[in-house]
Amino acid sequence: MIMPMTKRHGETGDYCLPGNIAIYNGRISGVGNISEDGDFDRIIDASGCVALPGFVNTHTHAAMTLFRSYADDLPLMEWLNTKIWPIEAILTGPDIYWGTMLCILEMIKSGTTVFADMYDFMDDVARAVDESGIRAVLSRGMIGVAPNGERALQESVQFIKNWHGKAGERITAMLGPHAPYTCPPEYLKKVMKYAEELEVGIHIHLAETLAEIGEIEKAYGTRPVQLMNNIGLFEYPVLGAHLVHVNTQEIEILAAKKVGVAHNPQSNMKLASGIAPVPEMLKKGIPVALGTDGASSNNNLDMMEEMRSASLLHKVSTMDPTTIPAYQALEMATRNGAEALKMDGDIGQISVGKKADIILIDFHKPHLYPMHDVAAHLVYSAQSADVKTVIVDGRVIMENRQVLTLDEERILYEAEKCAKRLVKAVG
Amino acid sequence: MIMPMTKRHGETGDYCLPGNIAIYNGRISGVGNISEDGDFDRIIDASGCVALPGFVNTHTHAAMTLFRSYADDLPLMEWLNTKIWPIEAILTGPDIYWGTMLCILEMIKSGTTVFADMYDFMDDVARAVDESGIRAVLSRGMIGVAPNGERALQESVQFIKNWHGKAGERITAMLGPHAPYTCPPEYLKKVMKYAEELEVGIHIHLAETLAEIGEIEKAYGTRPVQLMNNIGLFEYPVLGAHLVHVNTQEIEILAAKKVGVAHNPQSNMKLASGIAPVPEMLKKGIPVALGTDGASSNNNLDMMEEMRSASLLHKVSTMDPTTIPAYQALEMATRNGAEALKMDGDIGQISVGKKADIILIDFHKPHLYPMHDVAAHLVYSAQSADVKTVIVDGRVIMENRQVLTLDEERILYEAEKCAKRLVKAVG
Ligand SMILES: [Zn+2]
Ligand SMILES: [Zn+2]
Repeated sequence: MIMPMTKRHGETGDYCLPGNIAIYNGRISGVGNISEDGDFDRIIDASGCVALPGFVNTHTHAAMTLFRSYADDLPLMEWLNTKIWPIEAILTGPDIYWGTMLCILEMIKSGTTVFADMYDFMDDVARAVDESGIRAVLSRGMIGVAPNGERALQESVQFIKNWHGKAGERITAMLGPHAPYTCPPEYLKKVMKYAEELEVGIHIHLAETLAEIGEIEKAYGTRPVQLMNNIGLFEYPVLGAHLVHVNTQEIEILAAKKVGVAHNPQSNMKLASGIAPVPEMLKKGIPVALGTDGASSNNNLDMMEEMRSASLLHKVSTMDPTTIPAYQALEMATRNGAEALKMDGDIGQISVGKKADIILIDFHKPHLYPMHDVAAHLVYSAQSADVKTVIVDGRVIMENRQVLTLDEERILYEAEKCAKRLVKAVG
Repeated sequence: MIMPMTKRHGETGDYCLPGNIAIYNGRISGVGNISEDGDFDRIIDASGCVALPGFVNTHTHAAMTLFRSYADDLPLMEWLNTKIWPIEAILTGPDIYWGTMLCILEMIKSGTTVFADMYDFMDDVARAVDESGIRAVLSRGMIGVAPNGERALQESVQFIKNWHGKAGERITAMLGPHAPYTCPPEYLKKVMKYAEELEVGIHIHLAETLAEIGEIEKAYGTRPVQLMNNIGLFEYPVLGAHLVHVNTQEIEILAAKKVGVAHNPQSNMKLASGIAPVPEMLKKGIPVALGTDGASSNNNLDMMEEMRSASLLHKVSTMDPTTIPAYQALEMATRNGAEALKMDGDIGQISVGKKADIILIDFHKPHLYPMHDVAAHLVYSAQSADVKTVIVDGRVIMENRQVLTLDEERILYEAEKCAKRLVKAVG
C-alpha cells in the first residue's frame, strides 16, 4: 500500500487524490480512506509526495538514445542523410539492446511506466523491456519501399507471435509501418491484413512535415490523413505519431475513427516540423497524448518536459493563456496516453481495478514551494529528478531514485561503448 | 582550484574548456593546463563534471515565488486584477525577505549566480542577497502613475545610495521604472535625471504585450521602443525585459543604442504574450539574454529550461532547425546576460581576470549519456538537478547540491507560512 501526501498543507488540487492506495496482485485494489492496520505485505511511506499514474510515452525510438547529441541543429534532410541514416545502417542487436536499456533507465528515472516504441531488432528491445520491469507497446518499424520491406513485414509477424502479451503481459505488440511516404497503399493493405489476422494495432508516423504533405499530395492527389482514411487504415486501431499538418476536415476524420494521436511537442519544435493544432483536436474530443520521439531529436525522454512544452507552446501559439491548463496537460501525459494505446481499461488512472502503474513525486523541493496547486506544480514547476518511486504492475522498480531492476553503471558503460564504436565506424 | 571534466571521453564541445581553473581572490587566475602541485588552499575534484560560467538570470521578481501556482491558466487581466494585484497589495517586508530567500535558494540550486530583480521592499531583497552569497542587480519597481510614484522614486534613490556596490560588490543597484504604460515620459525624465546623477542603469519592461503596444500608440502615436528612444531613455544603460512586439526598425534602435534585451521565453509562452523576434535581434548583433520572469508566471527559476525553450521555440517559429543552436543558447544564458547587465567586464565567461562565478554540472546521469556533444547535452538534455556545485565570487555556496550559505528547511517553512497567510488574508 502507498500513502501519498494528504496533509502537508491540507490542500490538494483537482487531479490529486488525498488518501492511500492499496495494491493487490498487480492491480489497484483500493483508493482513498484505507486503514493502515490492514494485512499488507508492505507499506510505502509517501509523505511529502504526490502519487500520479505513471507517464505514458506514446512515441519513441528507444535505441536512438545512442545518438543523443550526435547531430543537432541541422536541416532535416542533412540530419537524416549525413548523420542518422548512415549510423543506423550499421546498428547491431547488442547496440539496440544497450541503447534501449539506456532509454528505459532514463524513462524509469523520469516516471514513465509505459512507452510505445517503433524500431528495429525488436527482440532485443523486448528483452530489455522484460528485464527492466517497464511496460511497452512494441512495433518493428517497416519501410515498405525499402529492399527489405517484405522481410520486415515477416519479421513483424514473427515478433508479434513471439512477444504479444508476453513479459507478464507487460508487452503489447503492434505493426509499425513507418509512414505514408515510405509505405505505399498496397504495402499498407498487407499491414492491414495482418492487423486483422493477428488482432493488433498499427503504429505509424502521420503528417509530420510539410515535405510529407507535398510528397503525398503529388503522388496521390490527397493529404496523408485523408489517404489513410481512403485506404481503410483507420478501420483498425491506429496510433498516429505527430499529426502536425492536419486540417479541420482531417481532425474530424481522426476524431470519428478514434485514431490515437501522439503529440511530440519538443521533437516538433527541435526539428522545426511545425505546431500541431492540438487545442482544436482536444476541442473535437480527440484525447491527444504525449510522446518524446527518439532522444536524437528531443534530446531526452522526459515526459514532464513534454507536458510543460505542450501547455506553453499551445498557449503562445493560440495567444490564449487558458489553452491546455495544467490538469489537461497531466491528462495528456497519463489518461490520454492510455487511450491512444487502447489500454485505458488497464492503465492511465489511479482507480480501483486498474493495473498498479504509479509514480510518487517528491514535493519537498524548493521549486515546489509554496503549495497552492498540485497540478500547476507538476506541469509548470516540477522536474523529472523529483520522481522518487516508480511502480509498474504493482512491482516497485525504482525506490528513492534507485532503479532496482537495472545495473545503472553497466548500462551507462555499455551504451557509451556502443555509441563510440558506431561513431568511429561511420568515420 | 577546480578540475573540470577533461578525460571522460577524451572529447569536449566548442564551448567547454578542457583543463583546470584556478581562482585567486575571487577572480579566475588561470584556465587550462594548470599543474595540481601548485600552492592551492583547496582543490575541488570536478571529474565527471562540466564547468560553465554561472547562469545570468536577467529578469526576475524574486519575491513573487510566494505566488508560484497560486494563479495559473487565466487571461492576463483577470490574473492581475483578481489574483496578483490584491495579494501584492498586502505584502510586508518579511514576506519579501522569505519569498526572495526561496527564490535565491532555487536559483542557486539550478546554477544561477546572478539575477536582475525588480520589486518592492528592496532592502529586504538586498539583505537576502547579502546573506546568501549570490550576486544581484536590484531595482525598486516604480509605477509612475500610482499615488506612490514620487515616493517610489525617492525610495529608489535611497536604496541605490545604501546598496549600490555593497555586499562585497555583489550588489549592483539600478532604477526600475516598471514600463512605458505605467511610467509616462515626464516621470521617466526624472528617472533619467537620477540615472545620470547616480550613474546607474535602468531596468524596465518593454513591449511585452499587444495591449501595451495599443495603449502606447493610442496615447503617444508611436510604439513603446520608439517612444523610449524619442525621450532619450536609451542614452542611459538600459536593461529591457521582454521586447516581444518589436518591428525591424525598433530592432535597429535597440542594436544601435546597445539596449540589453532580457528574453523570457517561458513567461512569454505561459502568459501568451507572443513570440519575440529573437533570431532577428541576434542577427542584428543584439546579444539577447535570458530571464525567467517571476515564478508566478513561469513557474520556476530554471535557466536550463529557458535555454531549451529559447532554442526550441525559435526553431519552430522560424520553421528552421538551425535557429539558435546549442552553443548560442548557452551564450545567451551566460555571456549575453553579462553584457545585458553591463557586467561583461566581470562575469559571463570562464577566462582569466573575470570574477569566479562558476558552476559544475554533473554529467554522470543517464540522460547525459552517451557523450557526443557537450553543448547539446547542456541545452537539450540536462536538467537543473544536474548542477552539483556553485561558486560565486570565488566562494563555494553550493557543494554536492547542499547550499552552504542558507538554511533550506527554514526557508521552505517560512515561505510556506508567508504564502498561506497572504492567501488567507485576501480571502
Ligand atoms: Zn518517430
Ligand atoms: Zn517582469
